[in-house]
Amino acid sequence: MQRTIKKIGVLTSGGDAPGMNAAIRSVVRTCAYHNIKCYGIYRGYEGIIDGDFVEMGPRSVKGLINKGGTMLKSARSKTFRTKEGRQLAHDNLIKAGIEALVVIGGDGSFTGSMVFNEEYNFPVMGIPGTIDNDIFGTSHTLGYDTALNTVVEVIDKIRDTASSHNRLFFVEVMGRDAGHIALNVGIGAGAEEILIPEEDLGLERLLESLRRSKQSGKSSSIVVVAEGDKIGKNVFELKDYVEENMTEYEVRVSVLGHMQRGGPPSCFDRVLASRMGVKAVESLLEGKSNYMVGIKNDVMDLTPFDQAVKGKSKINKELLRVSDIMST
Amino acid sequence: MQRTIKKIGVLTSGGDAPGMNAAIRSVVRTCAYHNIKCYGIYRGYEGIIDGDFVEMGPRSVKGLINKGGTMLKSARSKTFRTKEGRQLAHDNLIKAGIEALVVIGGDGSFTGSMVFNEEYNFPVMGIPGTIDNDIFGTSHTLGYDTALNTVVEVIDKIRDTASSHNRLFFVEVMGRDAGHIALNVGIGAGAEEILIPEEDLGLERLLESLRRSKQSGKSSSIVVVAEGDKIGKNVFELKDYVEENMTEYEVRVSVLGHMQRGGPPSCFDRVLASRMGVKAVESLLEGKSNYMVGIKNDVMDLTPFDQAVKGKSKINKELLRVSDIMST
Amino acid sequence: MQRTIKKIGVLTSGGDAPGMNAAIRSVVRTCAYHNIKCYGIYRGYEGIIDGDFVEMGPRSVKGLINKGGTMLKSARSKTFRTKEGRQLAHDNLIKAGIEALVVIGGDGSFTGSMVFNEEYNFPVMGIPGTIDNDIFGTSHTLGYDTALNTVVEVIDKIRDTASSHNRLFFVEVMGRDAGHIALNVGIGAGAEEILIPEEDLGLERLLESLRRSKQSGKSSSIVVVAEGDKIGKNVFELKDYVEENMTEYEVRVSVLGHMQRGGPPSCFDRVLASRMGVKAVESLLEGKSNYMVGIKNDVMDLTPFDQAVKGKSKINKELLRVSDIMST
Amino acid sequence: MQRTIKKIGVLTSGGDAPGMNAAIRSVVRTCAYHNIKCYGIYRGYEGIIDGDFVEMGPRSVKGLINKGGTMLKSARSKTFRTKEGRQLAHDNLIKAGIEALVVIGGDGSFTGSMVFNEEYNFPVMGIPGTIDNDIFGTSHTLGYDTALNTVVEVIDKIRDTASSHNRLFFVEVMGRDAGHIALNVGIGAGAEEILIPEEDLGLERLLESLRRSKQSGKSSSIVVVAEGDKIGKNVFELKDYVEENMTEYEVRVSVLGHMQRGGPPSCFDRVLASRMGVKAVESLLEGKSNYMVGIKNDVMDLTPFDQAVKGKSKINKELLRVSDIMST
Repeated sequence: MQRTIKKIGVLTSGGDAPGMNAAIRSVVRTCAYHNIKCYGIYRGYEGIIDGDFVEMGPRSVKGLINKGGTMLKSARSKTFRTKEGRQLAHDNLIKAGIEALVVIGGDGSFTGSMVFNEEYNFPVMGIPGTIDNDIFGTSHTLGYDTALNTVVEVIDKIRDTASSHNRLFFVEVMGRDAGHIALNVGIGAGAEEILIPEEDLGLERLLESLRRSKQSGKSSSIVVVAEGDKIGKNVFELKDYVEENMTEYEVRVSVLGHMQRGGPPSCFDRVLASRMGVKAVESLLEGKSNYMVGIKNDVMDLTPFDQAVKGKSKINKELLRVSDIMST
Repeated sequence: MQRTIKKIGVLTSGGDAPGMNAAIRSVVRTCAYHNIKCYGIYRGYEGIIDGDFVEMGPRSVKGLINKGGTMLKSARSKTFRTKEGRQLAHDNLIKAGIEALVVIGGDGSFTGSMVFNEEYNFPVMGIPGTIDNDIFGTSHTLGYDTALNTVVEVIDKIRDTASSHNRLFFVEVMGRDAGHIALNVGIGAGAEEILIPEEDLGLERLLESLRRSKQSGKSSSIVVVAEGDKIGKNVFELKDYVEENMTEYEVRVSVLGHMQRGGPPSCFDRVLASRMGVKAVESLLEGKSNYMVGIKNDVMDLTPFDQAVKGKSKINKELLRVSDIMST
Repeated sequence: MQRTIKKIGVLTSGGDAPGMNAAIRSVVRTCAYHNIKCYGIYRGYEGIIDGDFVEMGPRSVKGLINKGGTMLKSARSKTFRTKEGRQLAHDNLIKAGIEALVVIGGDGSFTGSMVFNEEYNFPVMGIPGTIDNDIFGTSHTLGYDTALNTVVEVIDKIRDTASSHNRLFFVEVMGRDAGHIALNVGIGAGAEEILIPEEDLGLERLLESLRRSKQSGKSSSIVVVAEGDKIGKNVFELKDYVEENMTEYEVRVSVLGHMQRGGPPSCFDRVLASRMGVKAVESLLEGKSNYMVGIKNDVMDLTPFDQAVKGKSKINKELLRVSDIMST
Repeated sequence: MQRTIKKIGVLTSGGDAPGMNAAIRSVVRTCAYHNIKCYGIYRGYEGIIDGDFVEMGPRSVKGLINKGGTMLKSARSKTFRTKEGRQLAHDNLIKAGIEALVVIGGDGSFTGSMVFNEEYNFPVMGIPGTIDNDIFGTSHTLGYDTALNTVVEVIDKIRDTASSHNRLFFVEVMGRDAGHIALNVGIGAGAEEILIPEEDLGLERLLESLRRSKQSGKSSSIVVVAEGDKIGKNVFELKDYVEENMTEYEVRVSVLGHMQRGGPPSCFDRVLASRMGVKAVESLLEGKSNYMVGIKNDVMDLTPFDQAVKGKSKINKELLRVSDIMST
């Protein structure tokens, strides 16, 4: 099936992630390539409700591919969660002649799109943009690869101090529900232990592991902790617990926070964003709707929104074992 | 089948690549984990012939995961290509009690291992380390992801100058036989055209594309050229050709050269190296030999050396199209 | 006066800073250049007390110039603060034949050296290594320039998120007693306000400034806060205060922490470390003692320890004004 | 004297340099702070001749402080070198109501301003922007500090390869007339030799130094060569010469080229640009003209254009000696 579309709107929603700008650029240029008008919508769904649109041509996205954040800005919209809000949104889109939407964001954003599509049969296509990589239907979300590099570079710096002073550092990284970042940067930065939401290591094993690590001649140690680690203690509580139970280490804490979200995207994220933008627009032109674009085995793929939203991306258990062996 | 091994040797061969050190570290620590002795061999096959070995324990590879280059050094060995050389090598390995080898390198290095294995039935396992990503049997070689980020960052800098002066830049990147780097950094850096060994774009189309690009309002342009591009002109000849045929642009050339090979590995390459080291050692322990470790769909995999050496990794044609659309 | 010295010891003390390794390298190579033996002393003064020395030649410091942290490790020594401790230290130095010391560290480390010199007339020379730049007698301490770049890059990333979400960020940077880092990164990162220990801006002015900033059309804002800011509220209290008194902004906090201390030194710090190492060793050879090496107007200079310790490096008031104008 | 100015124009001219955008931002915001209108002029003097002006307010320079290149673009103008061209330029400025100019550029740009000022008594103020640091009257030009860091990071990468393969690299860096970059990055990257325009090392001494370096146990070497080195051979000729006269090394060449000019400015360059912009605008308001803003001993300073143009910034001879000692 081919769908004739004259105007596509694009928005970013939820937390920002590196590669969102590259995805906007790709949507805009793919529209231009197919002679479709493209409208940028500011501040996510909020911008539809406010009618905050801007026409974008291929030159409007010049110099955008390597910029972090999102030039269209992002916001969480309470109004769009109401029936009245969505009605207003639909009216505004119709008024502006926008016939389909590309939504760049995470789980929550796709749920919004799904509901909107159900109510108004409005063509929507999603692009997964979040550093957490916690979305089902794609091996990589936009921004994840960049965040891994950002975090690994920061922990490299913390390691300089840790090993200069024979210290133990607890480093908290993003990941409320998913340990992808923690697990990969833990291995990448040579962490002694990695605490993630998916696995309950147990406090006893942590102590044991730190003791063994000390005995094996390591003078400093890094423990990477995902925000939502299963042990249920935050990094400051972990510090206290370890200091009470071990005297061998001076313990320090570092909470990396929002910096993990910013910065120029990695080459991988730039290419992925470019591919996803093309796929999203061309899928709409092929008559498809209500899907999230994903990448599987380096091939572009579509996952229905309801599956993407309900499913859960799993961590790679092999990595847990590799981490164990590496901290020998 | 289980093989009892008491000592494993590890070497790096061919051009160095980021992640080689992380792979050495992984081999050493996996050996320690399995209570096997590990010997580092200096300067590739040359070091076997010279008996240049060093025993390595888990603490010898401390602080190594984020270093570029290879601490074991690399070299091309003419002697190992001779029957006498390999005899000497075998004698030295036997004398040192080394019972299996992990070879980190590229095509040429694996051919050497294969021949050695045929002649002496000596257990060998390969880990693909080269920034070019031109090896069959793995979606990623060690160092490739890092090189993409290195190159993209450099072209971002060149872009600053290009767009400040309305210039056209030809940027030569590595890839004598494979366009993987050129194609990905071309998209990632927003290049107007990408010239690779796998595709003959033709000089006419290049000019046409540059003209269209100029007309569409672009004031500056980057053309990424792989060393072995099909057009058969090097970047300096391309510069001359374009200057003779177009007066719209001031043309400049940049040959990125060896810097593409160095630097701290990306998180992806560090994790990949760690996984490959584990897989290589454990495959030897399982009695396997004459394979290259690879990654396919994010799962560790083995490819027989002869297939790895004869095969060719293909570029992703989808990317050519994406590049075209992005330069709209 | 010329002093004949056969062996010099070098140590790092206090918090680590980028450039310390480059300074060690310089001390070692300058000794080699003058045919003097050089001993590395581990863990600061603690290592003298433990007799933890290692002989270092020009090749021992290979590949060290671009490494963060300190290979000699650092520690605070309680024992060295006692008379008995210093007696033991002196005995150990004499036993090892070490005739002079180069101490790389901060205020506290120099005080230790000064006391030691008074008691035993032992030749000592200091090199200022701390990212805070809070030492009198030098325009730059080792690590300061690197830390500025590290912090500015991180705030650039936070800015990506801040401007994508129209947020206000309080970013805490190092500087318990000195606002040098805060003031410079504040200007460098385009902060709206900068809170430092040297100036009491007042909470009212902060609110006023944020309001004006909002009215002038800024959608996001960064406020850089030195650890020891004069207002006397930490970043979390500032967040609460602003949220209670302004509803225009969503406020977030980021405490940068230890990462500010690590990483490869900037070119400036590498060159400075190299120069300081030469100056320290050659000053000892000229018979000088009890001085800190410094840089003033790009010329190497010596400041007596007691002045360096008592004095205070002042912030540049011009920068306060520039910051004000820049946040127009 | 106070001068009443209602409109200031700002332009960038000559080669681009990191920090130019930060300087533009500072000029624009300082104008806003003093309630003066500010006009951006595109493509240097060429833009005056074409009347290519844009009004800029404080929000037009948002997000500009960390961008390389120059948003106002730069060009060399042949027309402005003619009397007729300058007449046209003056007419256009008068027509637009622009009463004073801030020119960000190098020697050549200041000469243009000086002539223009002589002919029309038009108020002009210069800001030195060039990575070469070859301008008299300032210890630092905009972009110089950034370029040092860019180059040092690149040579660190080349070092990875050099030491993995026991190679000798000749690395060509920018500096046709001045060795500042070469001298500082040479020390910062641990180069064995540094060839600069100011000193004739001699080919014999180069060979001797490389031989000594080899004998002292160094397995790899980096020689940094300024474009305009005194020996008068380019890097490729040097390679040939050394290969003919030494067989100990495999020699490689790397010409860094234009990348040295781009990238986000260092913190130092951002602060310097901000300070220079304030000083330039406020000096014009104080009635001054025909000066270049500079920094001396960390204080803002003015140098008459004719001195800035005729003078020459000298290299620091101390660094030659430090380099010598460091390559022990």
